[in-house]
Amino acid sequence: MQVMPPALERLIQDLNRLPGIGKKTASRLAMHIMRSPAEEARTLAADLAELHNAVKLCSSCYIFSESDPCRICSDPSRNRGVVCVVEGPDDLIVIEKTGAYQGLYHILHGVLAPMDGIGPDEIKANELVVRIRRDRITEVLLATSSTVPGEATASYLARMLHSEKVKVTRLACGIPMGMDIKYADEVTLARAIETRQESK
Amino acid sequence: MQVMPPALERLIQDLNRLPGIGKKTASRLAMHIMRSPAEEARTLAADLAELHNAVKLCSSCYIFSESDPCRICSDPSRNRGVVCVVEGPDDLIVIEKTGAYQGLYHILHGVLAPMDGIGPDEIKANELVVRIRRDRITEVLLATSSTVPGEATASYLARMLHSEKVKVTRLACGIPMGMDIKYADEVTLARAIETRQESK
Repeated sequence: MQVMPPALERLIQDLNRLPGIGKKTASRLAMHIMRSPAEEARTLAADLAELHNAVKLCSSCYIFSESDPCRICSDPSRNRGVVCVVEGPDDLIVIEKTGAYQGLYHILHGVLAPMDGIGPDEIKANELVVRIRRDRITEVLLATSSTVPGEATASYLARMLHSEKVKVTRLACGIPMGMDIKYADEVTLARAIETRQESK
Repeated sequence: MQVMPPALERLIQDLNRLPGIGKKTASRLAMHIMRSPAEEARTLAADLAELHNAVKLCSSCYIFSESDPCRICSDPSRNRGVVCVVEGPDDLIVIEKTGAYQGLYHILHGVLAPMDGIGPDEIKANELVVRIRRDRITEVLLATSSTVPGEATASYLARMLHSEKVKVTRLACGIPMGMDIKYADEVTLARAIETRQESK
């Protein structure tokens, strides 16, 4: 016997389709929404319905944006010769927060994962090459994560860009700022020793 | 500088308001919805907008229902003399799944939590008394969880119902079926010994 009303059951199934939301969490969220004022559910519904109308991909850097080109790509104060390649929009945000980068971006929307069918075509690798040639990019900063798939993706892109007239750089790996060396893991410490820099 | 488009930022904030959904999870969910077909976002939006119109509380047992009285309260085959008191709709579902209970329900929608301002009025305790008198209920089965707040709520209700002409029962506590005794925790085992039953 189905105990939940169909409208609630439908919402639970919708939420259950989202990544990381299991059946129990979906049920808990639906109950919360049910117990909250109807206005909150309607606000969320309206914002969801509006999302795909309002937000598109920037045709240049593939960030989510309400305008095309996006605000960063159309900002005349940015350094248009440098492109920072990141896995996703979240990475762009953390880099922007540092204030240490003034160039443009290229969003891969993923990393290479051949087992999941994610190859170069899925991470807009060719679009990056086309852009480098067209916009005369002088430097590509590979800012994928220092995880196994992130490193593999960076290696692939570096090899792919080898024949292009562009400087390819990678985020430095090493000891996090403020960290006591005795707590650093061996791999990071080894890398920090290998890539040691002259003191200024 | 705000990097995310406002429509996406609004959705992230909406999702962030849900319980257990932090800023990062909200962002991850919003990105997923953004990358999925627009149709999926619209389905979720439509189901959310419809929810509060379609689903109400049953005025008898306070379960979420599209009809009032709900399907269980209006089912003539149920034992109308017994009311099972549960914390929430999820608990009702698991009890229904056992097939071991044929009576009606009373949904508290919470447990007593004086520190959070949740007193007897918030868990529909008076409504339970009114219902017991009006519908000539003969047994109330307190099926709150065997957690500290669940036990406290059951104790409160048992004391409250002491003066009513109704048998008050509680779910049995003991060793879970199929569990090796050496893995049972001491409190559960002690309780199982105290409430030991004659073999049949």
